[in-house]
Amino acid sequence: MKTDYGSIGKIVVLRMFNGEDVIQGLKDAIKKYGFDSGVILSVIGTLKEVKLHYFLGRSEGITHVSHSGHYELTCGDGNFYRNREEIMVHLHVNLSSPNEVFGGHLLRGSKVDATVQAFLAELKEVDIKKVFRSRQE
Amino acid sequence: MKTDYGSIGKIVVLRMFNGEDVIQGLKDAIKKYGFDSGVILSVIGTLKEVKLHYFLGRSEGITHVSHSGHYELTCGDGNFYRNREEIMVHLHVNLSSPNEVFGGHLLRGSKVDATVQAFLAELKEVDIKKVFRSRQE
Amino acid sequence: MKTDYGSIGKIVVLRMFNGEDVIQGLKDAIKKYGFDSGVILSVIGTLKEVKLHYFLGRSEGITHVSHSGHYELTCGDGNFYRNREEIMVHLHVNLSSPNEVFGGHLLRGSKVDATVQAFLAELKEVDIKKVFRSRQE
Repeated sequence: MKTDYGSIGKIVVLRMFNGEDVIQGLKDAIKKYGFDSGVILSVIGTLKEVKLHYFLGRSEGITHVSHSGHYELTCGDGNFYRNREEIMVHLHVNLSSPNEVFGGHLLRGSKVDATVQAFLAELKEVDIKKVFRSRQE
Repeated sequence: MKTDYGSIGKIVVLRMFNGEDVIQGLKDAIKKYGFDSGVILSVIGTLKEVKLHYFLGRSEGITHVSHSGHYELTCGDGNFYRNREEIMVHLHVNLSSPNEVFGGHLLRGSKVDATVQAFLAELKEVDIKKVFRSRQE
Repeated sequence: MKTDYGSIGKIVVLRMFNGEDVIQGLKDAIKKYGFDSGVILSVIGTLKEVKLHYFLGRSEGITHVSHSGHYELTCGDGNFYRNREEIMVHLHVNLSSPNEVFGGHLLRGSKVDATVQAFLAELKEVDIKKVFRSRQE
């Protein structure tokens, strides 16, 4: 285990509209407010295109799954940080319709249906990239 | 996309008991502490009555689904704000029993089974109603 | 309903590695930073061993379910507080693979697969134990 601590800075509230890319929207907001790193407090709404990946273990690697339809985005949990000029967003989600339920690691290409509401908290006085990129001792 | 930013104010911790209405309990707590808007940090516990709605697209509209039984409330994500005198709570949830799993947009009439524990964060210096009620440009 | 309020203190960021026990890791971090109580802001990653319990009502009590495989930990929601010298962690989770989806109350013995990233917020000026251990009036 690796740990570090900091404090909360600004809170960004954002709303995305039909057809917007969820991951790109979060990156745009993080860039706009100049956050170095933070935690995703809440992401809810509805999605019409969902692109996920799943980790199947070291030998099998990663598999991709896509869904198209009308889905409630029932929660979003994750974090973000800058790696040089790139903003890394790590967002896990759960989705549900009356007949389906699934979750996973959300990828670019996932699109808003009616709306998405998100809250991001800036973290200060901590380098989360250093914690996340450390190796097991 | 529309965005704005603010800061975190007070944090309310609340516990609800058997038979209480989850949405009404959150509204009562928000009213008690005089919050204008905020983000729901965590809602977990168990529910015995679950009332959900699902968005099926602009042509189909909204459908309602109810569940009765014993369900773990595995997460709650969302937000709240005042619209004139009314408190609007937007809460998405996931639920699970040994044999069932589902999620959705939680409605009034959803009742606590053993207990529910919730944490609400007040947001200051931001008008989330203005962000959420904006139109796509 | 019982309520109280406080404010956010420090934020701890932690990463756990393959084979680590999720609940024990959270307790170790809480102990390391001397937090009295707090809210779990985000827990995502992958698990290879998942131990859950479900509340089935007052007459049936609690049942336990275990899963082994490769699962995305799609969200973690909950809280923690000290009860004398013991740290109590109440964490509810959702998990998903391409073929399975489930959630529940996470127990000790649940093990990290590739990685877990978590964010904990310290709460100050509030006794959440008093709120959670109160009786219905």
